[in-house]
Amino acid sequence: MTTVSLPDYAIFVGDFWSEFRNFLSNTSYSRHFVIVDEHTARYCMPRLQQQTPDINWLPIIIPPGEQHKNIQTCNTIWQQLMDNNANRGALVVNLGGGVIGDMGGFCASTFKRGMDFVQMPTTLLSQVDASIGGKLGIDFMQVKNSIGLFRNPQGVWIDPAFLQTLPFREIRSGFAEIIKHSLIADPGEWERIQAIQNLESITWSDFLLPSLQIKKDIVIADPFEKGLRKALNFGHTIGHAVEGMALESEHPLLHGEAIAIGMICETYLSHRILGLPLETLDFIAGFLVRIYGHHPLAEALYVDYLQLMTQDKKNENNQINFSLIPDIGKVKVNQTADKMLIRESLDYYNSMV
Amino acid sequence: MTTVSLPDYAIFVGDFWSEFRNFLSNTSYSRHFVIVDEHTARYCMPRLQQQTPDINWLPIIIPPGEQHKNIQTCNTIWQQLMDNNANRGALVVNLGGGVIGDMGGFCASTFKRGMDFVQMPTTLLSQVDASIGGKLGIDFMQVKNSIGLFRNPQGVWIDPAFLQTLPFREIRSGFAEIIKHSLIADPGEWERIQAIQNLESITWSDFLLPSLQIKKDIVIADPFEKGLRKALNFGHTIGHAVEGMALESEHPLLHGEAIAIGMICETYLSHRILGLPLETLDFIAGFLVRIYGHHPLAEALYVDYLQLMTQDKKNENNQINFSLIPDIGKVKVNQTADKMLIRESLDYYNSMV
Repeated sequence: MTTVSLPDYAIFVGDFWSEFRNFLSNTSYSRHFVIVDEHTARYCMPRLQQQTPDINWLPIIIPPGEQHKNIQTCNTIWQQLMDNNANRGALVVNLGGGVIGDMGGFCASTFKRGMDFVQMPTTLLSQVDASIGGKLGIDFMQVKNSIGLFRNPQGVWIDPAFLQTLPFREIRSGFAEIIKHSLIADPGEWERIQAIQNLESITWSDFLLPSLQIKKDIVIADPFEKGLRKALNFGHTIGHAVEGMALESEHPLLHGEAIAIGMICETYLSHRILGLPLETLDFIAGFLVRIYGHHPLAEALYVDYLQLMTQDKKNENNQINFSLIPDIGKVKVNQTADKMLIRESLDYYNSMV
Repeated sequence: MTTVSLPDYAIFVGDFWSEFRNFLSNTSYSRHFVIVDEHTARYCMPRLQQQTPDINWLPIIIPPGEQHKNIQTCNTIWQQLMDNNANRGALVVNLGGGVIGDMGGFCASTFKRGMDFVQMPTTLLSQVDASIGGKLGIDFMQVKNSIGLFRNPQGVWIDPAFLQTLPFREIRSGFAEIIKHSLIADPGEWERIQAIQNLESITWSDFLLPSLQIKKDIVIADPFEKGLRKALNFGHTIGHAVEGMALESEHPLLHGEAIAIGMICETYLSHRILGLPLETLDFIAGFLVRIYGHHPLAEALYVDYLQLMTQDKKNENNQINFSLIPDIGKVKVNQTADKMLIRESLDYYNSMV
């Protein structure tokens, strides 16, 4: 087990169960809730229960998927907490992917003005990204994470064994954030990623730890996203819009699949605005399309993509805000692009077929 | 104008408008929203607009009353913020009573993970109580303020001129919190309150300031209600249950009216548990009934009152938690009473007819 310490809490990576049992016996929570979706109830909760036989876990089971990350599902969670007499002295464990962590953390943080919670992410995406940084929330009116707050968990417990329960497509989705972290902050890590032969036979903790370290350094420097933390937004301004639109379509994209498209478009913007060399652009874009395939963006919907981008939380002065990369391992926040140039970046992606 | 300073923000009491215009011109908020209900839209918003002619206020108008302090109304508020392209760079002013302050503050704090907001309370209750301390939230499943969070405003602006727009019953409701503050912390203030001849001809700022000072000292000592702050809960464990039940009845009670009943019952508990002298109990109870009248509590509903009390946020170890007064001006938190004794306290109130 490896520990990554942040000022208010720690991240435990590996076989942490003896440590986790200590945490539970050293605290005196009145009740122990575990929020899961139908998948993690089946594939992950048994492991939690086996490893902590002394705890009477009270499960709150919600339907799986981003389409349920909304206020209606929060109502269900709050109601079950209420029905089970939850109070501020109880603990919530969020056992699942990013949806469970974001929404479960939001519900715990707002129930009776704040219960303690811990994150136990079970997907690669949430292990590398959503579990760290204290961002909690739900989607509202098609805009991702538009209702939420910042609040730190009591701890983040990352057991890579949970990844064995995941389909490959989910793993690949999480890998996009690992790629992103390397592109904005660590050329050496980018090189290591290029050297991967087979994505399906990786020891993920080898890539998780450096990636968590990158994110941790950024989050500590800017916990409330006033500046530097926006670096993590690389690929996400366009990626979120692509994800939001795909959610409504017959072929929804996983988060990382949408972010891969966003990173290609925003690498194009980086080329046009910050002078990232054309060959680097083509290299990054080619690498991402080889992993994630190609999903054409309908030109008739460009106006809708742009509308969603104007809703992005990080915008200022009604300008669409980007974090772009002048070079591999470097990032500049608070970049803007006009709508024409954004359309061009979507065209660039479409032209890659 | 008088200023009461807290660590993170200040409370301005009196004719603060020149100061408020300075605040608006020294900040560079992208948009200015004002959340009002149908009453404050009519009676208070014109004053705000006249006093700040340079600001283009974007009003969000909600229906009035505690029965709308729920997640459905939050959806309406969030939706209007979204429709008007609100972002983290915009300001929300909550212009109204406690419902507006609590719910508007909650919506602002959770929209895009947190917009700045200021409280501009317009009722005596919210001026003396709800505006200070950073508690925000809504009711859920009949349990008051059960969804919410702690977050401080950028400032609290209290203009007693707004009180002139209020019916007497509303003023009298707010007065209950002033009485409470004196009972838990300031015997001298309690004496001054006894000396009031006519509640309808008071200069309220004379009573607001000492009362705010009491609450401020308690809140600063314990911002997240870990201990001392529970002192402010005197009268509220039973009072909230009475208010919750009355909300569903044909004769809803105002908050202060319910808290007056709660204070009588909990003064009875103070007598039985902490030895508050019987004559002091009868004196306090008589004083409160003279002001607030008497509203019998149906014995058939005692079980429902008790059920609501078991939902109180401040409970620990499944014990109903009280803050009680061993003497006037003193308070002990984390007191418990069994259900039999709580029933007795309701009987005591009923016996006062």
